[in-house]
Amino acid sequence: MSTTTAPPAPAPATSGRAPRAGDDPVDLRSDTVTRPTAAMRRAIAEAVVGDDVYGEDTTTAALERRVADLLGHEAGLFVPTGSMGNVLGVATLVAPGQELLCDSLAHVVRAELGAHAALAGVTTRTWPSQRDGGPVGLVDVDAVTAMMTPDAGPYLVSTAAVAVENTHNFGGGTVTPLPVLQELREQTRAAGVAVHLDGARLWNAAVADGLGLAGLAGYGAVADTVSVCLSKGLGAPVGSVLVGSAERMARARTLRKRMGGGMRQTGVLAAAGLHALDHHVDRLAEDHARARRLAEACAQARPGCVDPAVVRSNIVVLDVDDAPGLAAAAAAAGVRVSALGPRVLRLVTHLDVDDADVGRAAEVLAGLLAPDGGRTA
Amino acid sequence: MSTTTAPPAPAPATSGRAPRAGDDPVDLRSDTVTRPTAAMRRAIAEAVVGDDVYGEDTTTAALERRVADLLGHEAGLFVPTGSMGNVLGVATLVAPGQELLCDSLAHVVRAELGAHAALAGVTTRTWPSQRDGGPVGLVDVDAVTAMMTPDAGPYLVSTAAVAVENTHNFGGGTVTPLPVLQELREQTRAAGVAVHLDGARLWNAAVADGLGLAGLAGYGAVADTVSVCLSKGLGAPVGSVLVGSAERMARARTLRKRMGGGMRQTGVLAAAGLHALDHHVDRLAEDHARARRLAEACAQARPGCVDPAVVRSNIVVLDVDDAPGLAAAAAAAGVRVSALGPRVLRLVTHLDVDDADVGRAAEVLAGLLAPDGGRTA
Amino acid sequence: MSTTTAPPAPAPATSGRAPRAGDDPVDLRSDTVTRPTAAMRRAIAEAVVGDDVYGEDTTTAALERRVADLLGHEAGLFVPTGSMGNVLGVATLVAPGQELLCDSLAHVVRAELGAHAALAGVTTRTWPSQRDGGPVGLVDVDAVTAMMTPDAGPYLVSTAAVAVENTHNFGGGTVTPLPVLQELREQTRAAGVAVHLDGARLWNAAVADGLGLAGLAGYGAVADTVSVCLSKGLGAPVGSVLVGSAERMARARTLRKRMGGGMRQTGVLAAAGLHALDHHVDRLAEDHARARRLAEACAQARPGCVDPAVVRSNIVVLDVDDAPGLAAAAAAAGVRVSALGPRVLRLVTHLDVDDADVGRAAEVLAGLLAPDGGRTA
Amino acid sequence: MSTTTAPPAPAPATSGRAPRAGDDPVDLRSDTVTRPTAAMRRAIAEAVVGDDVYGEDTTTAALERRVADLLGHEAGLFVPTGSMGNVLGVATLVAPGQELLCDSLAHVVRAELGAHAALAGVTTRTWPSQRDGGPVGLVDVDAVTAMMTPDAGPYLVSTAAVAVENTHNFGGGTVTPLPVLQELREQTRAAGVAVHLDGARLWNAAVADGLGLAGLAGYGAVADTVSVCLSKGLGAPVGSVLVGSAERMARARTLRKRMGGGMRQTGVLAAAGLHALDHHVDRLAEDHARARRLAEACAQARPGCVDPAVVRSNIVVLDVDDAPGLAAAAAAAGVRVSALGPRVLRLVTHLDVDDADVGRAAEVLAGLLAPDGGRTA
Repeated sequence: MSTTTAPPAPAPATSGRAPRAGDDPVDLRSDTVTRPTAAMRRAIAEAVVGDDVYGEDTTTAALERRVADLLGHEAGLFVPTGSMGNVLGVATLVAPGQELLCDSLAHVVRAELGAHAALAGVTTRTWPSQRDGGPVGLVDVDAVTAMMTPDAGPYLVSTAAVAVENTHNFGGGTVTPLPVLQELREQTRAAGVAVHLDGARLWNAAVADGLGLAGLAGYGAVADTVSVCLSKGLGAPVGSVLVGSAERMARARTLRKRMGGGMRQTGVLAAAGLHALDHHVDRLAEDHARARRLAEACAQARPGCVDPAVVRSNIVVLDVDDAPGLAAAAAAAGVRVSALGPRVLRLVTHLDVDDADVGRAAEVLAGLLAPDGGRTA
Repeated sequence: MSTTTAPPAPAPATSGRAPRAGDDPVDLRSDTVTRPTAAMRRAIAEAVVGDDVYGEDTTTAALERRVADLLGHEAGLFVPTGSMGNVLGVATLVAPGQELLCDSLAHVVRAELGAHAALAGVTTRTWPSQRDGGPVGLVDVDAVTAMMTPDAGPYLVSTAAVAVENTHNFGGGTVTPLPVLQELREQTRAAGVAVHLDGARLWNAAVADGLGLAGLAGYGAVADTVSVCLSKGLGAPVGSVLVGSAERMARARTLRKRMGGGMRQTGVLAAAGLHALDHHVDRLAEDHARARRLAEACAQARPGCVDPAVVRSNIVVLDVDDAPGLAAAAAAAGVRVSALGPRVLRLVTHLDVDDADVGRAAEVLAGLLAPDGGRTA
Repeated sequence: MSTTTAPPAPAPATSGRAPRAGDDPVDLRSDTVTRPTAAMRRAIAEAVVGDDVYGEDTTTAALERRVADLLGHEAGLFVPTGSMGNVLGVATLVAPGQELLCDSLAHVVRAELGAHAALAGVTTRTWPSQRDGGPVGLVDVDAVTAMMTPDAGPYLVSTAAVAVENTHNFGGGTVTPLPVLQELREQTRAAGVAVHLDGARLWNAAVADGLGLAGLAGYGAVADTVSVCLSKGLGAPVGSVLVGSAERMARARTLRKRMGGGMRQTGVLAAAGLHALDHHVDRLAEDHARARRLAEACAQARPGCVDPAVVRSNIVVLDVDDAPGLAAAAAAAGVRVSALGPRVLRLVTHLDVDDADVGRAAEVLAGLLAPDGGRTA
Repeated sequence: MSTTTAPPAPAPATSGRAPRAGDDPVDLRSDTVTRPTAAMRRAIAEAVVGDDVYGEDTTTAALERRVADLLGHEAGLFVPTGSMGNVLGVATLVAPGQELLCDSLAHVVRAELGAHAALAGVTTRTWPSQRDGGPVGLVDVDAVTAMMTPDAGPYLVSTAAVAVENTHNFGGGTVTPLPVLQELREQTRAAGVAVHLDGARLWNAAVADGLGLAGLAGYGAVADTVSVCLSKGLGAPVGSVLVGSAERMARARTLRKRMGGGMRQTGVLAAAGLHALDHHVDRLAEDHARARRLAEACAQARPGCVDPAVVRSNIVVLDVDDAPGLAAAAAAAGVRVSALGPRVLRLVTHLDVDDADVGRAAEVLAGLLAPDGGRTA
C-alpha cells in the first residue's frame, strides 16, 4: 500500500485561532499552551502518513528534511518533545562519564529532570547564568572557555560539549547575538569541544535578530546538533526536530527508539509542524512586540522589576517580592502567569494571545505591581 | 482560555480506510502500519486539546480515565509508544539493580533496545519462550515461580517483578488463557513479586477469548501495571496507555517527562485512541479470522510450517528454511511480510487488510511455500 | 623516590595456616573466608609498593603481567573484587543497551546485585542452568547459539557477548570441559559474538582437568576477557585480575577508576596474589578430594541428595528439604554451611579446612541427613 | 574458626619510612604516593582478619566504628577509595535525576570520571570555585543557597544535596573555616537539602584549624555523610571510610557490593588505617609547615605565583606561565610536581617528604621560577 496517497481533505474548519469566550483567562504561563488553529487542524487531518519506525512516513521525512535544510545540517529527526531532542543531541556528542558545560539556568539542567545524567550518564558543570547584574542567560564565551578541559586524560573528566540556549527561557527570552555564538564556535572547535544548541525558541531569536527563517542557517552553523520545537511559539500540538550530521542522526534514531520515542504515523504531527513553518514564523514579531508592551507596562507600574530594553523576544521575567502571591492574584483577575521561583514571575506571549489579551493583562499586572497594589488604578 | 471548547468540526472526509490502488502491495509486516481512517482523522481534527504537561488536556484525561476503568485500575497515563509504557511500568515496580523476569522472546527484552537495563537499571533473567516444541510465548507459571528470588538479601539479586506479554508478538500472537494469568497472579502475590502485563495487543486477547472490552478488567486484575497500545490493531496513529495505582502513575508521569515523553496538546492523538476504542475493537475478530485463513493456506501448501490451530489472534509465525529469501520473493509478488530471523516469517493482519488482500496474500504465499515453489500453482 | 626498593623483611611468622582452637567451627560456607597464611602475611609485609593509579606499583604490575601471561592475554588489570572484574570485562565487550547472554544461575546475574544493568546498562537474557535433570551450570553450546542475535539491527537487541562461568559456583563447582568451551568459542566467533569467562575459580577447573597453571592458557584462549579471583580458593585476602587485549584493559582501567576501584599502594594485596600463585594452586587438588569425600558421606546418608560423581572441584551442592533448617542445625554442631535457597545447601572446601575438619563435618552432616536425623549415629 | 585470633606477629621491620637513595627524586605530585612505614607494615602483617562481606572482619569493623565515633556519626563503611566513598555517600542522599550542587573544581565533578552521573544518575550544577580573585575552593554559603531548588516539583530538577570539600584539593588545600560550614548546615537544613562532606583531607583541615582528631566531630556535625581517606596524608596503602546514619550506611554497603567494592579480608588494609589514626595525624602539622616553606620560596622567586598566607595545609598551587614545561624541568632536576592545567602547578607535602627533601625542592623550584630561570642561582 502506498504511503504517499493522501486521503481526501476534510472541509476547512474556521480559520484562525479557536474562539474564546470573553471571560476566558488570558494565559501567559507559557507558549506551550497554544492550541492548533483550524487551518493547522485541517493540515493534520489531511496528512499523508506511514509507519515512521519503518522510515515510511513521508510527511515526517519532509519535515525532517526541511528543518535540516533550514539549519544547514545533513539530517533531522522528529522527536516527541524538546527535552528528548536535547538529550538525544547531547548523547550523540557526550559519552557516559564525559562532561557537558552549560549555564546554571539552562533548560537542559533545570527542566529536564536530570535526564542527561540519569539516562545518558552525562556529567555537567555550569557557569553562572548572570554576571554582575546583567541580563540572564546570555552566552559568555570567556566563562565557557575558561571551564573547558577537553581530553583531560584518564584521571580527570573531559569536556565533550557545551550547550547553549537561544533564546533563553528562564533568562527571560534573552537573545545571544549570533557573532557571540560564532566566537564560541571558533573557540570550542579549536579545543575539540562540540556544541549543542537548545533552540526550542530559535525561531524567536531569528525573528528578533531580523533574520527570519532564512537566517536559521547562521545559527545552525554554530553547533553540531540543534533542537528546535514546533509546539511552543509555532503553535503545533506536539513535536520537535533535532538536526545534525547523518551519522549522529542515525544514532539518535536508535536512541530515540530506546527512549520510547519511536512513534508510528507521526505524519499527523509533522503536518502541523510543516504548517507552522509556513504560517507561524513571521508572526512571532507580533508576540515580541506584545511582550515588550507588557514589560513596559510592568516597568512603569513598578520601576526596576524588569528592563524593557532587554525584552527582545516573547518572554518577560519580572523580579518581584512574592511571585507566587502575585501569580495567584493575577489568576483571580483572569490573567495566568508562572511563578518560576520565590521572586521570579514569567509572562509569555504566543499565538493564542492577541492585542486585546495583552491590554487586559497589562492592566491587571500594572494594577498589582503599582505601589498601592492597584487599588487606585 | 477554556481548554474544553472544541473548534468547529471540519466536514467529514471519506469514511473507511484510505483508498488504495489495485497494485498496491498487501502489507502484512505488522499491525503498526495501519493508517487512520477518515472517521478517525475527523476525530483528530475536532479534538478538544490543552497542555497535557499542565494536566489540562481533557481529551487525554478522558482517554486515560477510560482505559484505567476498562482495566480496573486507579489511573492511566498516555505515552507516545508501547515501549515507553513498558519501561515506565517496569520502572515503577523494579528498583535499579533489582530483577525483572520474563520470557526469552518477550518484547521487553527483545525489541526495546535494552531500555530496561540502560535507562532504568533493571536486570533481567528469562525463561524459555517455548517448552518441548509447544506453542511459543505462553506463560508457564511453574517456570516463572521456580526462578523467583524475592527479597534475596544483600548479596543476591532480588526478583521484584515478572513481565508477561499477551498476546505474544514474537510467539505468533499466542494467547495465554486468563486462568493461567490468574494462577500466576496468586503465586507472585504470595511471594511479594509484582506483575507487569505488556498488553500491546491485549485487545486481541480479549477478543480471541470472546470477552471483548468488557472482559478487559479480568486481565487488568492480574497485574500491577498494564500497558496497552492504540497504534497497533486499533489503528490509531500514535500512542499507548499505561495503567496502575494512582501513586505509581504519578511517579510514571514524572519519569515520562524525564524520558522526553511529556508532550503538550496530546488530545489530537488521544482523540484517535478514543475513536479506536469505540469503533475498532470488535472488528479485531475479522483480523483473527483472516490470520487463521492465512495460516491454513500456508499449512496446506507446506505442512508443518505452522499449526493453524494455535493461530488465535492476528499474527501468524511460519517456520521456513529461508525467511529473508521468502520475504523478498513475496515482496516481489506484492505481499510484504517480516523475516524476524533466519527461519521465522511473520504475517500480521490488521485494519488495512481486507478479505481480498488476504486472498491475494494467501495465493502468493502458498505458491512460494509449495514444494515446487509455486511454479504449477 | 624509587618504588622498587623493598623495605627490610620482617622475620617470618609461623608458617602454614593460622592456629585454630579445637572447638572452632568448621567453616564450609565459602572459600572466600580463607585467611592469609603466615608466609603470605610475610609476603604482604615485604611488598614493594608504589602508586598504582600512576602505574608505579611494580608488584601489582608483576601480578597483572603474570596472570595475563598464564592466560595468554595481552594485558591484565588488578581489581578489588571478582564482581568488579566481571562488570569491567563485560563493559568492555557490551555497549549500553546491548545484550549479554548467560545461564540463569550465573554469578554475573545472581550475585552482583544487578551491576551489569544498573552500572553498565547491559541487558541480559539467560538460558536454563540445568537441562533435563542433569548437572547444573555446564555450558550448553546449542542453547547459547540458539539464543544469539548479533547485529540485530535498529529495532531488536543485539547480542554482544556470552558469559560463561567455570567452575560454576551455584551449580556446585561444575567443570565445563575445555573442548566444550572451545566449541563455544568457534560458534560465537563465527557469529561475531564475544565471550567473557568468569573464572573466579578457574584455578579449580584447571586442577580438576589435570592441567594446572600450565593449562590456563587453554582456558584463556576461549574468551576475550577473563576474570580470576585470588581471594577464594587461592587464599589471598583481597583481589582479582581481569585480562584481555591491551586496548580493552586500558579502557577497563579508566572504568575501574570511575567505579571507585583505583586504589593506590596495591602491592600489599598483589604480593599476596603472587604468593598464592606460587604456593596455593596445586594444593587445590586436596580441596577437591575433600569435597568429594563430603559428597560421598552425604550421598550415603541420604541417597539422591547429591551425585558424588559430579563433584569435581571444591563445591558440593546438596538438594535437601529444608536447607535453612539444616544449616542452622549444622551450625549448632560446629559446622557452618550456606543455604543458597529453600532446598539448596552449599559446602565449600578451602585452604583453611583440613582432613580433620572434613571428617568432623562429614560426621555432622551425615548425622543430620540420615533418615533418623542422626539420632542413632 | 575464630576470626579474632591474631597470627603471631612477624618481627618488626626497620621503623620509620623506607630508606631512599640520595639521588631519588623528591615526589611532590600528591600525598597519594606515600608508602607504608615499617611499623605500619607490621600492623598489616599482624592484622586479625575475617570475611568482611559476611561482616566478620573485626579489624575493619573496629576502624569503621572508630572513624564513625570520631566524626560523631552512627556508622561507618570501609571502601577501597575516596572516590567510591564519595559516590556512595552522594547516592544515599540524591536519587537518580535529582541534583547535587558543588563547586566547579570539586573532586566529585572533576576527578571521579563522571561516576555520580554515569553510575548514580545524579545531575550536578556548580558554583564558581573562585570569586573575585580570592582563594579557590572555599565554600560560599550565599552562592550555594542562591542555587538551591529543593522539592522543585514535577517539572524542575530538585536539589537534594550539596557537596563541600575540605580541605580543597584543586583549590590548593584551602581550608573552609568550620563556622562557615556550620552556617551552610543551618541554611541547607532549613531548606531540606542534605550535605555530603568530601573529607579526603579532613584530617589536614582539623590540624590546620588546631583541633586535631578531637575536633573531627565538629566537622562531622555539618554533614549527613562524610568520606575520609586513609591513603593520602595518613599514609595507609589503600582505603577510605564513609560515615553517616546507620540506615544510610546499610544502603551504602549494598551499593558498595554492586560497585564491586565488597572485599573480603580487608583487615589487612584496615589495620594500616588504624595505625595511621594512631600515629600519622598530629604529624600533618609538619607537612603543613613544609608546604608553607615551599610556597614562600616560590613566592620569593616569582612574586604573585602564590600567596603563602593562604597555604594552610599540605598543598601549594602555583600560577605559572607553562605548568607542563615547568613540571618537566623540575622532574629533570629531581623534583616531581603535578601540572593540573596549562597554568596550574601543584606541590603536595606528605609522610615521605622530610625537611631535606623540601629544602632541595625549594631550591630547584625557586631556581626555575626566578626571572632568569635559575641560571644565576
